[in-house]
Amino acid sequence: MDNFSFYNPTRIEFGAGKEQLIGEIMASHGIKKVLLSYGSERIKDNGLFVTVSDSLNRHGITLIECGGIISNPLISKVRDAITVAKEQNVDAILSVGGGSVLDSAKAIAAGSLYQGDVWDLFIGKGQIDAALPVFAILTLAATGSEMNSGAVVTNDDTKEKFAINSVHIFPKVSIVNPALMQTVSRDYLVYSAADIIAHSIEGYFTATIQPKIQSRLVESVIATVLETTEQLLADSADYNARAEFAWAATLALNGLTYAGTSGFGYPNHMIEHALSALFNVPHGAGLSVIMPAWMKWFHSQNTAQFERFAQHLFGLNTAEEGIAALEKWFDKIGTPTRLSQLGIKATDLPAILDNLEGNARWFGLAETYTEEVLATILRLAL
Amino acid sequence: MDNFSFYNPTRIEFGAGKEQLIGEIMASHGIKKVLLSYGSERIKDNGLFVTVSDSLNRHGITLIECGGIISNPLISKVRDAITVAKEQNVDAILSVGGGSVLDSAKAIAAGSLYQGDVWDLFIGKGQIDAALPVFAILTLAATGSEMNSGAVVTNDDTKEKFAINSVHIFPKVSIVNPALMQTVSRDYLVYSAADIIAHSIEGYFTATIQPKIQSRLVESVIATVLETTEQLLADSADYNARAEFAWAATLALNGLTYAGTSGFGYPNHMIEHALSALFNVPHGAGLSVIMPAWMKWFHSQNTAQFERFAQHLFGLNTAEEGIAALEKWFDKIGTPTRLSQLGIKATDLPAILDNLEGNARWFGLAETYTEEVLATILRLAL
Repeated sequence: MDNFSFYNPTRIEFGAGKEQLIGEIMASHGIKKVLLSYGSERIKDNGLFVTVSDSLNRHGITLIECGGIISNPLISKVRDAITVAKEQNVDAILSVGGGSVLDSAKAIAAGSLYQGDVWDLFIGKGQIDAALPVFAILTLAATGSEMNSGAVVTNDDTKEKFAINSVHIFPKVSIVNPALMQTVSRDYLVYSAADIIAHSIEGYFTATIQPKIQSRLVESVIATVLETTEQLLADSADYNARAEFAWAATLALNGLTYAGTSGFGYPNHMIEHALSALFNVPHGAGLSVIMPAWMKWFHSQNTAQFERFAQHLFGLNTAEEGIAALEKWFDKIGTPTRLSQLGIKATDLPAILDNLEGNARWFGLAETYTEEVLATILRLAL
Repeated sequence: MDNFSFYNPTRIEFGAGKEQLIGEIMASHGIKKVLLSYGSERIKDNGLFVTVSDSLNRHGITLIECGGIISNPLISKVRDAITVAKEQNVDAILSVGGGSVLDSAKAIAAGSLYQGDVWDLFIGKGQIDAALPVFAILTLAATGSEMNSGAVVTNDDTKEKFAINSVHIFPKVSIVNPALMQTVSRDYLVYSAADIIAHSIEGYFTATIQPKIQSRLVESVIATVLETTEQLLADSADYNARAEFAWAATLALNGLTYAGTSGFGYPNHMIEHALSALFNVPHGAGLSVIMPAWMKWFHSQNTAQFERFAQHLFGLNTAEEGIAALEKWFDKIGTPTRLSQLGIKATDLPAILDNLEGNARWFGLAETYTEEVLATILRLAL
């Protein structure tokens, strides 16, 4: 077990009806004026916007709207929102939506207290010394952003999908009400399942130090995703399955399962970021394509752990059997496992490889993931 | 899954050599003068005291010593320390020791900012509105106190072993260096194993709402304890086993495994508290006696979960087989499973039952745990 620091000050308010507390919670943090970031107008149709604005109003908090954030969120939109946040002098950002809205909110929060261009913070030209406090009401469980200090945004000019990470952008409070997720589409449910599994396996398979207790925690998360995704596909109104799925998503990337591990990378995310930056594919759909291909290329470098995966999650024996079982499960739930299902062809590989050059450097993986290796993995995904 | 709030702001600094950072850490929190609470003089013999005081000195922090805290710590000692803390006007408490020292430190921290007698806080006569900041260097992994908001202390006059719980007594930073635990005696290692398992199973078996993901997390903790205890008995210098054991101890009672569960109680702790309050038996030793007896009495009320326990942790089938396997494992590692091994006889039962009357009320379990039920359980433990 490697040395580590674990610190996660986000308060999770989990459960039915908790969004009604948002005004009270923000008022207790001294908030008077908030930028409310959200995605589509769906929250106005389904009553969530009214619930939130009523709660804020009751506690004397002024609300500035900032809608229209899309998935694979864009830095151009973040820049616009920062302009508004500064002009309006808001003292907090409230994200009402999924991971894309929340990641944007974190970037807005950091960018609002940074003098230069916010993209500087993504490419190491500037550092995050402060941020407006971030609050969240989550409507999609997948990214784990509700309880971590990271945010991923795409630069629409350069087609780079990069991240920031800072203690200042931990949400103060995240409200996770599984009932708000009941209307998530079947597609986004299965993409989310793939995303959570991806968060779980990156460290599990690639870490040079991977304590057994941490492997057990990861397997607890994945087993829960395997089980509850099927329960939700059978009955989208299954509140308990929705709740366990959501909690698994939070635990997969809140630092818990990575404590004491070391030497790991995020190769699947690195490759997928090129797909979503270039072709705007849903992040989880890109991941379910990349993971089996990456596993087929990588497994011989950590056979024992792949055997463990096969045994503990699928009751099988060999590394190959475990990988095949995961791929088959992705097929079963209906998330893609082939680039062709994303409309990506062999002739697109050069463009992907070109984008990946910068990604691999940014992810610190350029030495291992040469163009040749990446081409091999991508061809396994065709 | 029930609604829950999860909030745990303690920073864990885990790993070899981390105790050298204590001065830097406390200085970064603005601390100038600290009450250093500890147990025996062992920390002066083994060099830890010098390491800590040097680190504090280097950062200009004045240190007031408060040694002599015993296991099953006493409120009389806490009162004395509060007097010193107030006289000396310290601005933090630093615990260097195991759970007893840390629980005392938390009580001292709360009592130092409370006007009345500190025991008021344990019996609901007063409430904790503030506390001095608490820091910890852990030398024994068992109680989980390093990352939670609770503290258990015994009243030497009334023989009551009660607890406080408040957000104000979360340690700011806890340093967990497994290497500092290498000299823990064989006895205290196995008592600690029993304590961690007890923390894990109370909710696991008694909760009326027990999400499966939480059962999986609990099983991850217990499996780790079963494995690493045996590794440590074979080789007390096995750093990795010591580390995984310590992290399991932290996770067992930091709120993680209890999130979303409800309707649970702490019957094993309730019963054990009477044993350690009356006979000063080590907490873990009392628990390893009580757990199998309690399980034999209780299992038919939650057969499915006991079968799950037998299957997932011992590869067995029935509730009875799982209980027998746990008892046998306790016997194997050398922690007691019979009251007689603690020197407690059938003739002592009336005194225990008498003490338990107050405990059962305090634990909110008086309705279920009548004198008759408690007598049945205790007789199963003779």
